This record gives sequence, structure tokens and C-alpha cells, in this order.
Amino acid sequence: MSFYERHIFFCVNERDEGQMCCNASGGGKMLNYAKDKIKALQADGPGKVRVNKAGCLGRCDKGPVAVVYPEGVWYSFVDEEDIDEIVDSHLIKGEVVERLKV
Amino acid sequence: MSFYERHIFFCVNERDEGQMCCNASGGGKMLNYAKDKIKALQADGPGKVRVNKAGCLGRCDKGPVAVVYPEGVWYSFVDEEDIDEIVDSHLIKGEVVERLKV
Repeated sequence: MSFYERHIFFCVNERDEGQMCCNASGGGKMLNYAKDKIKALQADGPGKVRVNKAGCLGRCDKGPVAVVYPEGVWYSFVDEEDIDEIVDSHLIKGEVVERLKV
Repeated sequence: MSFYERHIFFCVNERDEGQMCCNASGGGKMLNYAKDKIKALQADGPGKVRVNKAGCLGRCDKGPVAVVYPEGVWYSFVDEEDIDEIVDSHLIKGEVVERLKV
């Protein structure tokens, strides 16, 4: 088994002013929200889930995006409710959130 | 199948001056070397391998580190020869480099 049971990477890429990219469309904000939520859920022991920021993931047309490994499932999201569902269903229980897949 | 056949994340975390971390011990430099190498190898078509930078991967004691998904194999490396082996063997051919695993 890998070191982490599940590992999610949020694209937080930034471009020159005026060009949209994952960070400008909410990637960084949602990353922080997910980090705090996972930290609270895993407060009692070593984390099996890791939340990370990443550079440009190369799927700008679907942004903001995050990818969950080892499954290799890609998500796009709008708000904190979407992140709640990705965390609660996929990261914790292993159930893919079909409606947010890209 | 996932969007990329293989996806490697290099920790390029930076700490306050004086504290060692993956970037200070070569993470960023080796990331750039791997990116250039993969770009050259995949010049003729859409890339099946993606090289990304990431924030702190939480394995500072083994740094500098990178993780390859979907396999979830972690590597530590010293120089460009190590990166050549990770790229040529694992990222391109799918053969894990046992000697660099952590």
C-alpha cells in the first residue's frame, strides 16, 4: 500500500493578471477549506489522507480541478458543498462523486 | 484509465531560511530537470506522463522526495542520474526503481 491511503492535489496555478486559471477560479480557497476539514477529521491520529497544492495540472479547460490518487479521479468544483462531498464520500469512504467528475 | 498514465509530484516546499526541506536539498532543481526530459521525450504527441511540483508532501525526513501515481511509489534522489533512472524506467516503462524507493 502507498504511504497515504488517498492523496488529493489541487491545482493552484497562477497566471498573469487577467488570465483565468485554477487559482483565480477558486482552487486555492477550496484547497485551504479541504485542508482544514481533513485536519479536523484526522485530529486523533496519523493521517491516511493527504491534501496538497500542485502546480498547473494541465486541465485548465476544466478548472478549477483536483485529482485524487491512487484512483486517478479528476474533479471540478464550485463551492464548499462540493468539497464536503469529495472529502466525505471519496477521501474518507472511497466512494467516487460521479456528479463532480471531469 | 486516468487522464495521465503516470503522474509524478516533486516536493518543492520551502521553509524559513536555515531549515532544510525538499527544495533546499534539490527538489526544485530535479523537478526542472525531469520536466525538460519528459518534454523532450514526449515532443511528438500528447503526453501520457505529467511532471508536477507540489507543496510539502509530509515526508521531510526522506527528502528530497517525489511520488509517482497511480502506483504510489515514493522516491528520494540525489542527482540527475537518479532522475534519469526514475524517468526512463518507471515513468516511461512502468518499472519501479527499487534502489531509490523510500
